[in-house]
Amino acid sequence: MRIDVATLFPEMCERYLEESVIGRAKDKGVFEVYCHNIRDYTLDKHRRVDDTPYSEQKGMLMQCEPIFRCFEAVTQGRERPHVIYMSPQGRVLTQKRCRELSQLSGIFILCGHYEGVDERIIEEIVDEEISIGDYVLTGGELPALVLIDGIVRMLDGTLSNADCYRDESHFSGLLEYPQYTRPEEWHGKRVPEVLLSGHHANIAKWRREQRLINTVKKRPDLIDTAHLAPEDMDIISELICEQNKE
Amino acid sequence: MRIDVATLFPEMCERYLEESVIGRAKDKGVFEVYCHNIRDYTLDKHRRVDDTPYSEQKGMLMQCEPIFRCFEAVTQGRERPHVIYMSPQGRVLTQKRCRELSQLSGIFILCGHYEGVDERIIEEIVDEEISIGDYVLTGGELPALVLIDGIVRMLDGTLSNADCYRDESHFSGLLEYPQYTRPEEWHGKRVPEVLLSGHHANIAKWRREQRLINTVKKRPDLIDTAHLAPEDMDIISELICEQNKE
Repeated sequence: MRIDVATLFPEMCERYLEESVIGRAKDKGVFEVYCHNIRDYTLDKHRRVDDTPYSEQKGMLMQCEPIFRCFEAVTQGRERPHVIYMSPQGRVLTQKRCRELSQLSGIFILCGHYEGVDERIIEEIVDEEISIGDYVLTGGELPALVLIDGIVRMLDGTLSNADCYRDESHFSGLLEYPQYTRPEEWHGKRVPEVLLSGHHANIAKWRREQRLINTVKKRPDLIDTAHLAPEDMDIISELICEQNKE
Repeated sequence: MRIDVATLFPEMCERYLEESVIGRAKDKGVFEVYCHNIRDYTLDKHRRVDDTPYSEQKGMLMQCEPIFRCFEAVTQGRERPHVIYMSPQGRVLTQKRCRELSQLSGIFILCGHYEGVDERIIEEIVDEEISIGDYVLTGGELPALVLIDGIVRMLDGTLSNADCYRDESHFSGLLEYPQYTRPEEWHGKRVPEVLLSGHHANIAKWRREQRLINTVKKRPDLIDTAHLAPEDMDIISELICEQNKE
């Protein structure tokens, strides 16, 4: 997979992409990523890329032409990549969408800054607007990194063990069970006995219950769409009864 | 406001926080931020901070003690900050929560990595678990940066014009209207005539309509909780009729 990022702050993105799990995946050749400075594609002698919006007293808007020229230069002579604009107006990102996007061979991500971009560049080149959540940030760079991290994490070769992501939250629609590591007792808090028992069936049962408890307590909205077994429903009914008593 | 971040990758966070709007706010003294390497607080001679989880074949879990020692050292002799753990198990971040958190004087953010942290450190020090969305990332560092960006953006002095955030998406519950800047015509696409008219009432009406259209088309789920005027309802009814016809 090849990812191209068009931004006014390429260093901000590049630095993150050098580090940690994602940096290692890049070094191993799991994916390629290139960050492009939109400012390099302006024809303005002052390297200007923005201008005031029509009928607006405030803010600056990124102009179409430098973005378009950047896109043309980056995609010339190759298969057109899927073009994503990071925007609070977009569809909210989900784990499912990360998995789908991880199947593509090419992605071009446009990061807005200031008040955003001229609407016409969205009409002209953008296939999909994605929001990472219902909050406003100072630019599209962090959202782009979040998207890249979420996608690259799903690529073969990124995580050391392909099983790593199987049990995780948002994959099966339930939150995770709590986890514990050494020491057995810390600040008077002991690791739950069942985890020390070696009894696999009991451990599996405890974990399933904990996932259901966590989800009902913290994210009841997820229960509706989770894949539940009949015995899960019994546990949930009990939980709800207990909550109503409290 | 003072923000402390506890992480295994302090450079990754520090670099982002030097740049752009957030970096300028920091330089102006709008807020203070310190990134702490949890590894500096381990008592292990190999600077180890993680261990295998109980009854688990895979993955590594961050241990309680180094995190706790970091927390103690950073918060010693000052008012206890609000402690947030970035986690897919947390409540999903909203603009409202960003605004509320921007009122606090101290925040301590714990970033998990690998498979997460020992549950007991959450019980011991964490006040709130926050998720930035329903997807899984390789660590808590990007989520922490998203949270900091969303909070710092709301602080007085960060944005050059205090009005900047008033009209934006997620603040009033509707998406933004499209924006345009020079030139008037680009690739055969003209700026909507109304924006060139100078007729303020018509422009305001057009913008409201565009916000409603955008929201109904892209994020119909937001309509339920948006603040709507009676005339908005007429526009929405028309839109829905049109959609049903298509």
